[in-house]
Amino acid sequence: MSRVTVLGSGSWGTAFSAVLADAGNDVTMWARRAEVAQEIRETRVNAAYLPDLKLSERIRVTDDAHEAMQGAEIVAIAVPAQSLRDNLADWRSAIPGDAAVVSLMKGIELGTTMRMSEVICEAGGVDSDRVVVVSGPNLALEIAAKQPAAALVASTSARMRARVAEACASRYFRPYLGKDVVGTELAGATKNVVALAVGMASGMGMGENTMASLLTRGLAETARLGTALTADPATFLGLAGVGDLVATCTSPKSRNRTFGFELGSGKSLEEVVAHTRQTAEGVKSCRSILELARSVEVDVPIVENVAAVVHEGRTPGEVVESLMSRSRKDEKA
Amino acid sequence: MSRVTVLGSGSWGTAFSAVLADAGNDVTMWARRAEVAQEIRETRVNAAYLPDLKLSERIRVTDDAHEAMQGAEIVAIAVPAQSLRDNLADWRSAIPGDAAVVSLMKGIELGTTMRMSEVICEAGGVDSDRVVVVSGPNLALEIAAKQPAAALVASTSARMRARVAEACASRYFRPYLGKDVVGTELAGATKNVVALAVGMASGMGMGENTMASLLTRGLAETARLGTALTADPATFLGLAGVGDLVATCTSPKSRNRTFGFELGSGKSLEEVVAHTRQTAEGVKSCRSILELARSVEVDVPIVENVAAVVHEGRTPGEVVESLMSRSRKDEKA
Repeated sequence: MSRVTVLGSGSWGTAFSAVLADAGNDVTMWARRAEVAQEIRETRVNAAYLPDLKLSERIRVTDDAHEAMQGAEIVAIAVPAQSLRDNLADWRSAIPGDAAVVSLMKGIELGTTMRMSEVICEAGGVDSDRVVVVSGPNLALEIAAKQPAAALVASTSARMRARVAEACASRYFRPYLGKDVVGTELAGATKNVVALAVGMASGMGMGENTMASLLTRGLAETARLGTALTADPATFLGLAGVGDLVATCTSPKSRNRTFGFELGSGKSLEEVVAHTRQTAEGVKSCRSILELARSVEVDVPIVENVAAVVHEGRTPGEVVESLMSRSRKDEKA
Repeated sequence: MSRVTVLGSGSWGTAFSAVLADAGNDVTMWARRAEVAQEIRETRVNAAYLPDLKLSERIRVTDDAHEAMQGAEIVAIAVPAQSLRDNLADWRSAIPGDAAVVSLMKGIELGTTMRMSEVICEAGGVDSDRVVVVSGPNLALEIAAKQPAAALVASTSARMRARVAEACASRYFRPYLGKDVVGTELAGATKNVVALAVGMASGMGMGENTMASLLTRGLAETARLGTALTADPATFLGLAGVGDLVATCTSPKSRNRTFGFELGSGKSLEEVVAHTRQTAEGVKSCRSILELARSVEVDVPIVENVAAVVHEGRTPGEVVESLMSRSRKDEKA
């Protein structure tokens, strides 16, 4: 059993803390705001995110990140993708030198087009062999309800991925091992954008064929981009690829899908942002992913069209139309 | 524009006839029973399968297969998988020698473990270069409603796949080209079995994570089996792989998913068969697929567990449990 710190107390940070506690570890969860930490400590419930999950007494909760990381063998990070770098500036000196550092985040940093693990290495002073990415069909609400799910635990280090997989394996959470950090992270970031596209089509009243066609072509362009960036194409066929994409695109609980759905139903971007009270990560990441794709000259029509809707005022109807009317081609082209 | 014959007037045969007519072809649809042919001819509706689809006057309907195939440049077959061989015995002499023969079927023949294209070649006396397989996220009801969808058109012959893709391309049906007949057919047959497993989990009350985890691991074992049988692994990442699987596993309109759902809800096999008035294709094909997998020594735990439920009385709960408790392993293993 390991000593594990989870930095972040949003829905996934909280649900993953519960997984780790159920697997028998000694878990400390950090919340940014002192009053949130105190409320969770006292009620054992994170009311804002997972009101139905009673957290085990075994999970310590604090707003002091440095204290939280003392003696940790595993440090798992679950903060908003675009705030990671700033957080790491504070945390850098406190991350234990031999800890596995787990990224639970999905996104590409704006401005730098860096993956989350790259930001962890650069801004956290962490060796890349110590980084582990956990990703898969893991909707937080369902994990909190202890419904069976599998996930990919990827690291370039066999020792580190085994340590993290061992720590999170439980009756309802089944880790599989992988080496492909690049593919795992690209799949995770792009799925948010594909979920926006699928949500748009769904909001326009389209059914499973259209959803599955968009999802598949979205996966194809992700795999093309990933392969150009040294990822293993097989990763996209796996839990962090297809698995995560399917769970996100079919769940009404997914923020990105819901955001797209409202756009597809005819609401303006401003109305949707006002209504959901936050911008979905795919809205931010689509620009970084597009930039990344252009740097390696890979065609990513779905990401491009989503970016045109959320940043240039194109309508979702034009997006679906443009995808259906491209010239005939080989599936792999 | 081509002269096309569609043999079969179930839901997919009928919907595909409409696609071909909308694309501007001269279409003849064959129905096995004379009264069905007559009813469709007179009402322009196939009431038993697609009561909301008004068929174009351009579609001729007959119960004479030999007459239907006269002068056809494309013959598309959509009959139940296990009845294909018997039908071909009747049709063999009437299939024009230069026609592309399209398989719209998904299944593996019981007893022989042959794919549909292999049965077409053997029992229909058709050269394998003339066979084309069309597969993808193509729920007939949605195609009939003209909702946008993409499909894979696969053949070893570039000329034949181009001919068929040209014939079926329309505003709402977008064909992509491929070469991998083996992978396309295995993906299509196995997805029925995976849809049974996903339906079972769903009937047991499980959510999107479990569904996506089962779907992904089902795809992984299909890809392993396919690769052992010379398929291109990339096919499983495409429209006939992920695409078809996702549409089938998420749609309440899918027969196999629904069949699994009822089993997962606690009904017995006999009750479900009585209730659905037919046995889903996956119930039949799971045994042939298992036999095929054993012949090349590939482990297919999901197919194996589904077969245990539908043929050996194991409970769906045991299936999910057994999948979650296997030993830890590499995702690609």
